Amino acid sequence: MTTDFTHQTYLSPFTWRYGSAEMRHIWSESHKRRLWRQLWIALAQAQQVAGLITPEQVDDLRAHAGQIDVDRAHQIEAEIHHDLMAEVKTFAEQCSVGGGIIHLGATSMDIEDNADALRLRESLDVILDKLTNLLAELASQIERWATTPIIGYTHLQPAEPTTMGYRLAQYGFDLLTDLAELRRVRDGIRGKGFKGAVGTSASYQELLPPPPKSPPLKRGGLGGGKFSAAQLEAHIMTAIELEPFPVATQTYPRKQDWLVMNALAGLGGSLYKFAFDLRLLQAPSLGEWAEPFGRKQVGSSAMPFKRNPINAENIDSLARMVAALPRIAWDNAAHSLLERTLDDSANRR
Amino acid sequence: MTTDFTHQTYLSPFTWRYGSAEMRHIWSESHKRRLWRQLWIALAQAQQVAGLITPEQVDDLRAHAGQIDVDRAHQIEAEIHHDLMAEVKTFAEQCSVGGGIIHLGATSMDIEDNADALRLRESLDVILDKLTNLLAELASQIERWATTPIIGYTHLQPAEPTTMGYRLAQYGFDLLTDLAELRRVRDGIRGKGFKGAVGTSASYQELLPPPPKSPPLKRGGLGGGKFSAAQLEAHIMTAIELEPFPVATQTYPRKQDWLVMNALAGLGGSLYKFAFDLRLLQAPSLGEWAEPFGRKQVGSSAMPFKRNPINAENIDSLARMVAALPRIAWDNAAHSLLERTLDDSANRR
Amino acid sequence: MTTDFTHQTYLSPFTWRYGSAEMRHIWSESHKRRLWRQLWIALAQAQQVAGLITPEQVDDLRAHAGQIDVDRAHQIEAEIHHDLMAEVKTFAEQCSVGGGIIHLGATSMDIEDNADALRLRESLDVILDKLTNLLAELASQIERWATTPIIGYTHLQPAEPTTMGYRLAQYGFDLLTDLAELRRVRDGIRGKGFKGAVGTSASYQELLPPPPKSPPLKRGGLGGGKFSAAQLEAHIMTAIELEPFPVATQTYPRKQDWLVMNALAGLGGSLYKFAFDLRLLQAPSLGEWAEPFGRKQVGSSAMPFKRNPINAENIDSLARMVAALPRIAWDNAAHSLLERTLDDSANRR
Amino acid sequence: MTTDFTHQTYLSPFTWRYGSAEMRHIWSESHKRRLWRQLWIALAQAQQVAGLITPEQVDDLRAHAGQIDVDRAHQIEAEIHHDLMAEVKTFAEQCSVGGGIIHLGATSMDIEDNADALRLRESLDVILDKLTNLLAELASQIERWATTPIIGYTHLQPAEPTTMGYRLAQYGFDLLTDLAELRRVRDGIRGKGFKGAVGTSASYQELLPPPPKSPPLKRGGLGGGKFSAAQLEAHIMTAIELEPFPVATQTYPRKQDWLVMNALAGLGGSLYKFAFDLRLLQAPSLGEWAEPFGRKQVGSSAMPFKRNPINAENIDSLARMVAALPRIAWDNAAHSLLERTLDDSANRR
Repeated sequence: MTTDFTHQTYLSPFTWRYGSAEMRHIWSESHKRRLWRQLWIALAQAQQVAGLITPEQVDDLRAHAGQIDVDRAHQIEAEIHHDLMAEVKTFAEQCSVGGGIIHLGATSMDIEDNADALRLRESLDVILDKLTNLLAELASQIERWATTPIIGYTHLQPAEPTTMGYRLAQYGFDLLTDLAELRRVRDGIRGKGFKGAVGTSASYQELLPPPPKSPPLKRGGLGGGKFSAAQLEAHIMTAIELEPFPVATQTYPRKQDWLVMNALAGLGGSLYKFAFDLRLLQAPSLGEWAEPFGRKQVGSSAMPFKRNPINAENIDSLARMVAALPRIAWDNAAHSLLERTLDDSANRR
Repeated sequence: MTTDFTHQTYLSPFTWRYGSAEMRHIWSESHKRRLWRQLWIALAQAQQVAGLITPEQVDDLRAHAGQIDVDRAHQIEAEIHHDLMAEVKTFAEQCSVGGGIIHLGATSMDIEDNADALRLRESLDVILDKLTNLLAELASQIERWATTPIIGYTHLQPAEPTTMGYRLAQYGFDLLTDLAELRRVRDGIRGKGFKGAVGTSASYQELLPPPPKSPPLKRGGLGGGKFSAAQLEAHIMTAIELEPFPVATQTYPRKQDWLVMNALAGLGGSLYKFAFDLRLLQAPSLGEWAEPFGRKQVGSSAMPFKRNPINAENIDSLARMVAALPRIAWDNAAHSLLERTLDDSANRR
Repeated sequence: MTTDFTHQTYLSPFTWRYGSAEMRHIWSESHKRRLWRQLWIALAQAQQVAGLITPEQVDDLRAHAGQIDVDRAHQIEAEIHHDLMAEVKTFAEQCSVGGGIIHLGATSMDIEDNADALRLRESLDVILDKLTNLLAELASQIERWATTPIIGYTHLQPAEPTTMGYRLAQYGFDLLTDLAELRRVRDGIRGKGFKGAVGTSASYQELLPPPPKSPPLKRGGLGGGKFSAAQLEAHIMTAIELEPFPVATQTYPRKQDWLVMNALAGLGGSLYKFAFDLRLLQAPSLGEWAEPFGRKQVGSSAMPFKRNPINAENIDSLARMVAALPRIAWDNAAHSLLERTLDDSANRR
Repeated sequence: MTTDFTHQTYLSPFTWRYGSAEMRHIWSESHKRRLWRQLWIALAQAQQVAGLITPEQVDDLRAHAGQIDVDRAHQIEAEIHHDLMAEVKTFAEQCSVGGGIIHLGATSMDIEDNADALRLRESLDVILDKLTNLLAELASQIERWATTPIIGYTHLQPAEPTTMGYRLAQYGFDLLTDLAELRRVRDGIRGKGFKGAVGTSASYQELLPPPPKSPPLKRGGLGGGKFSAAQLEAHIMTAIELEPFPVATQTYPRKQDWLVMNALAGLGGSLYKFAFDLRLLQAPSLGEWAEPFGRKQVGSSAMPFKRNPINAENIDSLARMVAALPRIAWDNAAHSLLERTLDDSANRR
């Protein structure tokens, strides 16, 4: 358990009690700003190819990419009330050569939204990895108990015999469904791309050398040209290995966040069900299953002999929180004026 | 507007004000019982092939399949407190030859759950049909207004120019995502199959002639044999053109309902957003768009000149209800003891 | 079970399976329109006192108050797309003398919102009545089992002894809290009053004889005068025994609906908990409690011997729906542009 | 902005961006453990009066009450997997005289639940204080703009004139309702009391000298005697100025948390509505209102001239999260097996 934070203030349980190290890293301010800087560099590289800026400028940015200084950025933000512009200025202070061209032609959401898409994808990769391991372990348990007869319960009443492996296979099937959903959502993650203030790419197009004859605004807002805004975007998105949405406003469609939250809530629901059943089955009157129990573990402060299914209870408690997330994402998606994603949401094991 | 119901009692707005005729039909008691009878007939047919019952019995059932008598069924239910068994008895009263073999070896959920899966699929087909039409119409509007410049708003503040077609394309893209989700969910609809009380198919297996050597309970509970319970299920499900889940308890995994509700909530969210934007844009100060307005339509009882976006408001109001449905389905899926699906949920246009 | 509705169409379960007769009556179209007419008559009476209309006109309205004709109203609505104005016209057609002065100076929400407040109050009275009976019955059970020892469970693990009466007292205490909440909410129900289009009472004031000297719009919008709009409102609201909100826009504050839904959800939560515990305790392994079971009742279509806690399961299923209602009401309250209340929400036992 | 935490890990926005200093303090681990120790001392004091322990032991506890050592406690917890017992041991290590009698006769929830009730009350006091200030400020604005005419909007369509003060009064009335709800809930906050493992106080009673004649378990489980468990509880609760629930299981009824969350969600809804309206009215086309804008503030990284209502947007974004909390609390209250409160929920400004 790390101690590089203080318990003198409120800390989310995900900061210290429940979150995994990978998730805490992905959803840290430092990592976010590191991604922002990667995106600015990718933008600068593409603009260099288009002849707008010099290789030296790009090199300068690249040299200082790792110098995240959240304190300095917050200092600037306190003055200008704009967190991304504060990071631009922090980065620019560090880059005497390239500082002036950071964020050239971009709107905040060209950076923030692509970074968020990357963070969502990173988070889903962590979850998929853990879920795959869980399923492999569960599969071997299903095999192991495939023919062990147990009594099946309906309405909590003993009904007909079934097998332990068959019961486990129910959880397995639910989790397989979740795995498929999570994979599909993960593979479908797209960034906003670099489309500027209202998604028309106009600000990028204006910076580029004019093509022979081009209408100011074609379908999808991406004008043609020798090196068009569309090509600029393609160049950047290839560099960061993220497919862009074909259309976007200032942001990517918030439906994407909702789809991610749904997939997480689905997983939460399967784990909730499994944990809830375990709690029922750990009751001595049923007495079939039990969580592992540490040798020095204390059951209860008043009744230390007790074997409470605390992990299962934690799973159910957390799953209830996850179940609330899709609705928040739906609200964000449904209200066209929305402003921010829910950065505390994806912190799942 | 039909009048074969009375306004002396509470009626859901979906019964008379908002539901489409197709949806009302699909979610009527009559239709549900018609599907139940189809399933009993498919079961009987398969059991005839297995040599358990006679062709005359099946023919008798088939002859009376259409005689739905909800009143009689409710009469019986008042006594035995079991709605499906009441329908079995109602059907049996009508079938002097085949009445005795209805529901042979089955548990209620072998009938109800497969019928619900069929109703969900029928509902999704209605929605997909309407959504496809909507998208075709929207596509032609996107083409039509592709280059018409309008001002883009961010934070409700005028920002940069965009085009009308490009804005419409945002809604279109959201709806395309919904279409893909709905199609995927629709194509993935599966029934419980015919697996008996706790999903092991034991009750069907017992009725079948024993195979030379077969363990009472193999993987997945589907024993072998000359004509196994697995083959019986395959026979029925082919007849009703519905794929079964490979594993099930007494019910199919409630995660399926949740996936359907999610897909509907997604569509609701896109329509909500579109309608909400329309309401903003119909405000005279913006004044860009407006709903059609009937020639005799009254704007307001106090201010008849007003042009209120009542369709858009209705869409948003209904969408808020739809947004609440996934959570109910999640609850059902997460609590392993669950008992009933939410039959009033899919009533969407 | 009545049969004055048809099962050829979708019917909400509250229309036939779950709703009480009182609730179905309160939330019927007929009853709503009866209340509308009462409000129009109360308005006319007050305007008669103010000298705006004649006693004969009021008498004419009173004479036809009971002639609800939903079919005719729907016919008119199909043309003018305004349900309340359609009822005005239907009522007016019936009243040759007073027809012309119905709804004089009013906006739709002066009628609809006050009627809805009355319906909410009527519904809460039904629920309070039933809940009071339930608590009386529970109290006698608490007394009866006050010293009967049972084992207490924590984490579903047997812990220390308690008494049956003490356990029942927990449910009782929760329900007492609900009773207090419901009573408080019921007693706090207020109507919009008669404040016109945007809550300023201007339209009523204009009809009244001008006072000697009165500013066009004073605090709260209620101007002075010999017989002011404020007095007109007071006259009406006294007649219908409903206190008005001191301020309102076109509608009463939707926070009121949310408070009602919360109180219902609270009751739903207590019943859910009780029913859920009962389901656990009815499991034979615990085996302490059981629902009554009818002599001819069928436990399961496959296992008729089983004693499933179906009432408890129904309670939990319905409670899940009730738990979703506050969020919908919150949405309505939070979005200032809201248009309709949730007429299917209060249908509870 | 403090920097005694690190941005290398995930931090809840309430830890650094949005939470107030008071709230962060109340919901810190340190403060929670400080309250735990206060409760142990109050328990010890009462047990001293009952003659169970010595004044020296109580004095020893009191002397070390302030030595919170979260790191040591986490070290112990890592071994015994029980956070409260880990704090008992940490505290006991510090108290050579009184260490052995900490938590005498208590169950964890006698400490945790009373501490949580105190934290809820402290939080509500912070919020009530801020809300009272807000209302005072709003009241003066209502006075100030009482007669300033503006146009009223219904359905976002200009309707009839109203006044600025009257519009503000709508928000004021909503907030007054919230104030009343919050005060009522705050004044109703009760602790579990000291009732032991399953709420019967048996463990305390056993420690006390037996009364002349006392049934082992009377109504409410609180036996009589010279110094009864009921008197012990009364002694402690008076000392910490918190009324106990008359009945409790191992925990206080979770309905209390739900009532608190509701009151917060109500406030969130009013603020959401106000902020949403402000965002509409700040649109230049309406252009009536605007947020203050710092002199150096940057409107947008691409369009620095813009005046985005960022505070209002933040309010709406946070309110959406608050709106999700009651449902989580409802789940906890409705599932009788619940284990933990949601310690990250009350963090509001």
